[in-house]
Amino acid sequence: MSIKIITLTTDFGLTDPYAAEMKAVILGICPTATIVDVTHEVEKFNVRMGAYILASAARYYPKGAIHVAVVDPEVGTRREQLLIQTHNGFFIGPNNGLLFPASEREGIVEVRQITNHKLMLPEVSNTFHGRDLFAPAAAYLANGVAPTEFGPEIRNFVKPDFAQATRIGTVLSGEVLYIDGFGNVVTNISDRDMTLLHLRKCCSIKFNDCQLQIEIGKTYGQIKPHQFLALIGSQGYLEVAINQGNAAEKLGAKIGDKISLE
Amino acid sequence: MSIKIITLTTDFGLTDPYAAEMKAVILGICPTATIVDVTHEVEKFNVRMGAYILASAARYYPKGAIHVAVVDPEVGTRREQLLIQTHNGFFIGPNNGLLFPASEREGIVEVRQITNHKLMLPEVSNTFHGRDLFAPAAAYLANGVAPTEFGPEIRNFVKPDFAQATRIGTVLSGEVLYIDGFGNVVTNISDRDMTLLHLRKCCSIKFNDCQLQIEIGKTYGQIKPHQFLALIGSQGYLEVAINQGNAAEKLGAKIGDKISLE
Amino acid sequence: MSIKIITLTTDFGLTDPYAAEMKAVILGICPTATIVDVTHEVEKFNVRMGAYILASAARYYPKGAIHVAVVDPEVGTRREQLLIQTHNGFFIGPNNGLLFPASEREGIVEVRQITNHKLMLPEVSNTFHGRDLFAPAAAYLANGVAPTEFGPEIRNFVKPDFAQATRIGTVLSGEVLYIDGFGNVVTNISDRDMTLLHLRKCCSIKFNDCQLQIEIGKTYGQIKPHQFLALIGSQGYLEVAINQGNAAEKLGAKIGDKISLE
Repeated sequence: MSIKIITLTTDFGLTDPYAAEMKAVILGICPTATIVDVTHEVEKFNVRMGAYILASAARYYPKGAIHVAVVDPEVGTRREQLLIQTHNGFFIGPNNGLLFPASEREGIVEVRQITNHKLMLPEVSNTFHGRDLFAPAAAYLANGVAPTEFGPEIRNFVKPDFAQATRIGTVLSGEVLYIDGFGNVVTNISDRDMTLLHLRKCCSIKFNDCQLQIEIGKTYGQIKPHQFLALIGSQGYLEVAINQGNAAEKLGAKIGDKISLE
Repeated sequence: MSIKIITLTTDFGLTDPYAAEMKAVILGICPTATIVDVTHEVEKFNVRMGAYILASAARYYPKGAIHVAVVDPEVGTRREQLLIQTHNGFFIGPNNGLLFPASEREGIVEVRQITNHKLMLPEVSNTFHGRDLFAPAAAYLANGVAPTEFGPEIRNFVKPDFAQATRIGTVLSGEVLYIDGFGNVVTNISDRDMTLLHLRKCCSIKFNDCQLQIEIGKTYGQIKPHQFLALIGSQGYLEVAINQGNAAEKLGAKIGDKISLE
Repeated sequence: MSIKIITLTTDFGLTDPYAAEMKAVILGICPTATIVDVTHEVEKFNVRMGAYILASAARYYPKGAIHVAVVDPEVGTRREQLLIQTHNGFFIGPNNGLLFPASEREGIVEVRQITNHKLMLPEVSNTFHGRDLFAPAAAYLANGVAPTEFGPEIRNFVKPDFAQATRIGTVLSGEVLYIDGFGNVVTNISDRDMTLLHLRKCCSIKFNDCQLQIEIGKTYGQIKPHQFLALIGSQGYLEVAINQGNAAEKLGAKIGDKISLE
């Protein structure tokens, strides 16, 4: 018996019954699924934040894992619902860019619309596709239903512009993707981007209106407490941090802020 | 091997070790149980809020699921502890109305007091029946112990008055059961109540001292952003919402507020 | 097939993907593990708070349970990583006192450093040992790898001073270990300490600068609402509580405050 892992990433919070209802539906269809919460604390409607958290977590999951993500301000309108197969697993959620960074990272094999009503709950509400449509899709997929059963291929799915930093000469321009609970400011500048610049011990970072000379380190504990540090974080992206401090607070950083580096 | 689902709904929060201790006790008695958190973020001692969340989530769970709920201001006093069997599953918790809306919805078969000390932890504290009494009861039940073993039937269990809206002529009177994380104001007026009124496109809602003419819709995205909308939410109850906004904040609504509709 | 329980206690919070990454790594190595969250809401870097929560929860887990705890301000520096075997189970985490109260309570059999790189992720980051080192260790241990494989024994591991109250004559001196979500003030004065004092109905507690005569009770509901109460809480430690109120707020108590009792 193979293990069927289904992960959940949503903006439903932990008070409302919504995540528990998704789990109920999954266990009703696939009782042996191992359900793992990635997070339900994505800021409401913040697709970029959800996309980052999903991309961070997904790459550690074993082959065949099924990731359901729901940050879905347009639920009930014409936005499509997607099933993306990658070289490593599957991603299920709305067509709004949420699934793109994670699935692109694993290598997209094909993208389908979910249109087959036999693989949804008998009644699909207009307000809660997470429970009525995405959860059943994940559970049927875990049960072995072929991706082709879910619906037709789609080619023009949303590829959000926050997915990548841009390089012009020796200047890398990106933006803040995420601020973690420790106040570390995570950007969309990847370790590969950084390698191309041949940076050494120090870098010059422009953040909003402020210019910083920051040491490049490997670990928070390596530099003096309360000093800035630039490092490739555990997610593979450039982070601006303060050892034992809160960099985001000090910089007044928020998700979406521009950053450039040379 | 059948799947044994045990859900947990409490006001213990996610910081304290209490929910983890309940899980420890369950896994010690029934190691193959699938434990699902409905929520541990019920407002402390808010029985009504716990009752609503439990009722919302429970109905999606497969046949035989065991639901443990603990919002229990009177723990350690003479309030009884209940095991309710319904047509769909089981509910375990204090006799204070918490289990009633959920179990009534599924159809109550019988209600028992849990009095058999052999099906509790060897030492039952006066402050934490969730761990010492309700968790073991759920685990033994999952192990196949018959409901009759737990204790005698009880007939005068608590039926809280927040469980149902009342109708006089064309006026439905209810109250706010819950405010979800999106600011949607959920009432105890059900879809069946609404059908009886033959409402069409619009309704008149009286909320505290304010009178609103609200469009009746099917989905948040269907009306203009920042406008009020009345809809039957995904839980089967009348909700007052604002498309991409926070209705509860705008209305100053809180749990228990009166609402009437015609 | 024996059941493999792995619990997680961290200060990662529930928004960031970090806990989900630890679970991914565990399931990749030991797909049949039953993973239970004790909490991820330890206050950041608060080793004492993490130690208390872990000690509270761990003792309810069945024999053989593996507890991973990560509150680790010194990650990436020279602090050792520990695998502690007790008479009941295993504890994995940094050598900073976090694991000590829980493992001492169960009876320590041996303490090892985790140094074997074959039992870590191929790349160990300097910032996230929870995922790269502690999670794999737990999963390999669950798979049956012998403790001796992980690394050499260590004898001078950290034994924190907050682990025990002290008694001089009839005066017990301790400190606040934890304040739970109900505002109960939990001390490090244990039920055994109390028994030695032969206390009866009442005790005199000195807390910071204030002296209180408090009734000793067995349950919150037993005394009048809004009155102070001293009781041995469900964790086996002396708590100061207010029936239906918040004792910590009333006393201005915080973790680490001194308390004495006679």
